[in-house]
Parts: sequence; structure tokens; C-alpha cells
Amino acid sequence: MSQPSCPLPIEGDRVTLAHGAGAGASARLFEELLWPQLANPALGARHDGAVLEAGGARLAFTTDTFVVRPLEFPGGDIGSLAVHGTLNDLAMCGARPLALSCALVLEEGLPLSTLSRVIGSLAGAARAAGVPVATGDTKVVERGKGDGIYVNTAAVGLVPQGRALRPDRVRAGDVVLISGPLGAHGAAVLSVREGIAFESEIRSDSSHLGDLVEVMLEVAPELHCLRDPTRGGLGAALHEIAAAAGCEIEVEEDAIPVDEPVRAACELLGLDPLFLASEGRCAAFVPEADAERLLAALREHPLGRGAARIGRVADGAPRVVLRTGMGARRLLLLPAGEPLPRIC
Amino acid sequence: MSQPSCPLPIEGDRVTLAHGAGAGASARLFEELLWPQLANPALGARHDGAVLEAGGARLAFTTDTFVVRPLEFPGGDIGSLAVHGTLNDLAMCGARPLALSCALVLEEGLPLSTLSRVIGSLAGAARAAGVPVATGDTKVVERGKGDGIYVNTAAVGLVPQGRALRPDRVRAGDVVLISGPLGAHGAAVLSVREGIAFESEIRSDSSHLGDLVEVMLEVAPELHCLRDPTRGGLGAALHEIAAAAGCEIEVEEDAIPVDEPVRAACELLGLDPLFLASEGRCAAFVPEADAERLLAALREHPLGRGAARIGRVADGAPRVVLRTGMGARRLLLLPAGEPLPRIC
Repeated sequence: MSQPSCPLPIEGDRVTLAHGAGAGASARLFEELLWPQLANPALGARHDGAVLEAGGARLAFTTDTFVVRPLEFPGGDIGSLAVHGTLNDLAMCGARPLALSCALVLEEGLPLSTLSRVIGSLAGAARAAGVPVATGDTKVVERGKGDGIYVNTAAVGLVPQGRALRPDRVRAGDVVLISGPLGAHGAAVLSVREGIAFESEIRSDSSHLGDLVEVMLEVAPELHCLRDPTRGGLGAALHEIAAAAGCEIEVEEDAIPVDEPVRAACELLGLDPLFLASEGRCAAFVPEADAERLLAALREHPLGRGAARIGRVADGAPRVVLRTGMGARRLLLLPAGEPLPRIC
Repeated sequence: MSQPSCPLPIEGDRVTLAHGAGAGASARLFEELLWPQLANPALGARHDGAVLEAGGARLAFTTDTFVVRPLEFPGGDIGSLAVHGTLNDLAMCGARPLALSCALVLEEGLPLSTLSRVIGSLAGAARAAGVPVATGDTKVVERGKGDGIYVNTAAVGLVPQGRALRPDRVRAGDVVLISGPLGAHGAAVLSVREGIAFESEIRSDSSHLGDLVEVMLEVAPELHCLRDPTRGGLGAALHEIAAAAGCEIEVEEDAIPVDEPVRAACELLGLDPLFLASEGRCAAFVPEADAERLLAALREHPLGRGAARIGRVADGAPRVVLRTGMGARRLLLLPAGEPLPRIC
């Protein structure tokens, strides 16, 4: 093609699994290869979805492809995950969903019974959220050129008047809340994949946060930003927000909720729960004046029972600081070379 | 998951390449496995995109995943194809595009230079259409679990007041026009894939039809339906329209434009150009009174120079009838077991 290619300052000259892991290498691939060619204001907002002005309305639009392995895991499968993940991206924009799309890449030889179960689960999750799967596509690739099923779900929604949830609204003084214990999705998928059994089965936290977000916005209309800590976990999410807001974020290590089985799995697998994906949690950035009211409301909701206040935004260079139990402050660095591929 | 599975009356119990080829088996997969679980009015319209009422506006929403092999071919690549294909689905709904999404599935080991070329081409096609790539996603799968790059593009657009392009508006008496010669995209991809050189290189017709559709609607506001004959070609497109409209469609075999190199390639490869994909053509269903004016306007446009009147809609059972040069009438049957996989 006649398009000019951008220079490639990314280390190495080939795609690696780390480029898909949601932390350092992923960010560089976006910043150095994709962004220079695709640059536009909506994409530049670095949000979970784009918010567009259209015909007097504010539309939110988001997309995600799911390549999770295995296809089925305790607490969900690639079908329900695709609906929850994409609708949660809309919810993080404060948008109410209008419609989902569903585009499948099937591998030749996939049992139709597996496909039927996954589509049943996807349809059930969409129905539970009250959102139609309005349009779709199905492609088939040869045996060995896929891995059962890859699912893309995109979604459109409407952002009601007066709502403005955006990373660049986060400011010094904001309190950071998390809606519940972290990392259950990542731990559930990895424990099945690695064939590790724990005393109590770890179930993915995959769920749709739309209703929870409506409650949050009712109680705290001044909410500045929401972010679901999916691929890359809370660690990557906080880094993205700190960069977009131009602030320091300080979190109390001991305040971050992690369920005991997830903590045990992390120890066994040598993983940090701060970088493990959740698929039914969100971090909220809210003015101090609203923080306790919001926390109380979260804890009233079935999906926010384990909510906690975990930190605060401060003036300073964009970075994430962890305050340990001993009172020490250390920088939370993004793991560059430790990919957890295909967790979503 | 606890969702009930639907029965599986589809032949065999595994996904085959034919399920992705856009004709008979694809239709059965949709009708018998996907539709029973996902059923809703928007999906039921069997259109290239969904049209949704939202906040006083009419939104169009569409999705397509592209798995074309090879990634680059004469006249385009998977990047430009993904933009053209998805924007053309909006155009077939009479919608003006607002935004595109781009979700990549990259295979470990893909040269970053290839990715950069494809993204450059995708960005160039989006820029030429004046549509921002507003949101995106990147996943990486292990070597041997993908095939370089799969691209999903979804798009949202607005349908201006008064427009109603839909398969169920097609009626007896409508004239069928085609905007240009058929099958160049399919022939270009297959000739590269099979390593066949023809006297003159066959270039894909991949292009964005948005401007052409605006011209068509200006000249013939009473246009009933548009359909781009992509995967499955004109044959599959006519079958879908006949079924949705509940009418017979009769086409004149000799009137269907096919360029000589494409015809030669089809003879060599044993293919019927009627089932070969185009990615820059559309069929139009229009009342007789507007047909000649519309044909003249098409021929004035750079993308419609080879437009032709090819048939007519009649009362009768939903089917497609081919009138041969000898005046005989024969049913055009969908090829069930002759897949052309990964053409888009």
C-alpha cells in the first residue's frame, strides 16, 4: 500500500505475547505504532470507550476481542465474558447500553455443542443486561489457525446529560475506591489453565457493572472517573489514569482487598494480585466530600459488598506509589516482560 | 453455564470451512444455532447492519471480522478491506458513518513492519472516508493460534430522516441494478493465494461506497434496498433478499457484468463469478420509474462506470431465477459444499 509506515522504535521487530498483556509492552505498541497512524481526539481520550457527539445525543462506542483460554472456566465462559467486558467499558463511560454486536472467528473442527453453549451463555448475559445483540458476523478459519472461538463484541450506548466520567477529570485530593476484591477472574482462568486445584474453587468475578454504576452516579454525581481493572489489573489501570490525569496516585497496600484463595493462588503461581485481571470490579475516583457516602452505597449493592477505600490522588509527577504496611513508600512499576496472555 | 442449549439439526457436529463461506451452510448455522438464542427485532431484519432508534436519532450499527488470506493482495490489504467492508455495510443501510472501531488479534511472531503497513492502510482508508477510528483493542495469541492478523471493525452511523433501505421493502416490479463488474475482489485474492498469474493482474475492487450511495439516494430517493455482494457473491445476496422480501428475483445471465480477466480466472479455477466476492459493488432494488435515471447517475460516478440493469423482482415463491442467453429459465441454487474460505 502507498501509506507511509511509521518508524518502529519498539524493541525487537516482531509481535510478542507481552504486546497483548495489557501493561508496558502493550502501551508501547499503542503509543509508538498504532497511535501515530490513527490519532484523533476520541481515541486520544485513552478511555475504555469513545464518547461522540451525534445528532444532539452523546454516544458511547467500544470494542473488545476476547481470546481467553480455556473457553470455559469457573464463573463464566468466553460468551458471558465478552458481554460483561464490553458492557462494562460502556458503564465506565457512564453510558447506558443500546445494542451489542457479536463477531465470531471459529476454528474448523470446533464442536457445535461447544459453540452452542458459548452462544447460549452470551445470549443469557445480554438478556440479563437487557441489551439486544443487534448485528453480527461469523468467520471460519482452518484448523490450527485459531483456537476454538474468538469473540469480538462492540457496543453502543447513550451518555445521559450531565455525566462526564473521564480520566482527565481526576485531580489531586480525589479518593480512590475499589468496588470489591481483586484478581478473581485472572486467578480462576490461570488455575484452570495450569490445572491447579485449590481448597476452594476460585470463580471468576465476571459480571455486568451497569446497575452498580447507575447507583454510584445517583449517590455521587460528582464522580470524576471509573475504570475496570481488567487485563493488566489494578496496577495497569492506575498507571493509565495517573498518566491521563497528570497526577500521582498513592494506594495503601494493606487496604487493597484480595480474597484469600486468590492470594494463595498468586503465591503459588508467583503473581502479584495487583496485576491480575478482574472482570466485575471498578475503581472510582471521587472528591473527598462524596467518598464515604459512595463507599456506603457500594457496600449495599450485591456487586460492591467488598468495596474499600484504597488510596488518594496527589499533586506530583504522573506515577503510582504504594504505601506499605510498614509505612514505606515505593513506586509501583509496570511489569514489562511478565505477560499473562489470553486472560480475556 | 446454565443456559439451555439449542438442538443442533445442522449436518455433522463440528464447524467446517463451509460454515464461513457465506452461502448455504453459513445461513443454516445462523438460522439453526445462532438465531434461536439471540433472536431480536434488529437482528431479525437480516440487513447488513442494525438500525436502532436512540434519543430521537436513527443509529446504524454494524460489525465484521476480516480473516482474509493473504493479508496483502493487488488492490488492497486486510486494513483497507476492513474499513471499506464495514463502512459499506453502513452505506447499505443509507447511514452516514460517525466512527469506526478497530480490534486486532495478532499472532506472536508477526513482523511489526507488516503490522505497520496494514495499520497505515487501515488509517488511510478511514481518513479517505473522513471517519475516525475512535476506539480499539489489541490481543496477541500464541504462534500457531492465529494467522498474522485478524481485524474486527465495527461502525456506527446516523440514518438521515426519510431513508428506509431494507430487504423487506423490495417488491414485485422492482428493477435490479448492479453498480459494476462482479468478482474482482475474490478473483484477486484467490489468484495470489493459488499463485496464478494472469495476463493482466486482477486488482481487488475494494472501495468505500458511501459517496456513491449518497448520489444514488439523491437521484432515486424511492430506492428500496441496497446490498453489497461480498462473501457468497451476488448469488448469496440475491437469495437473502428474495427470502427477506418474499419475492422471486429473475436475473438475465448475459446482462451481469464480469470483467474478462475475472471470467478467465473463474474458468481456470472452476468457479462461478456469480458466487465470487466483490468489495466495492452494490446491487440496487428500485422502482421501474426510477431505474433508468439511477442507472445513468451510477455510470457518471467513478465507482459506478460499469453499472448495468440485470433483472427484475416478480411475484412468486422466494427464489432466484437465471434467464440464460438462450431464453431458458433455471433456478440459481446456493452452492452448499463449495466453500471459498477467508476471502474477506
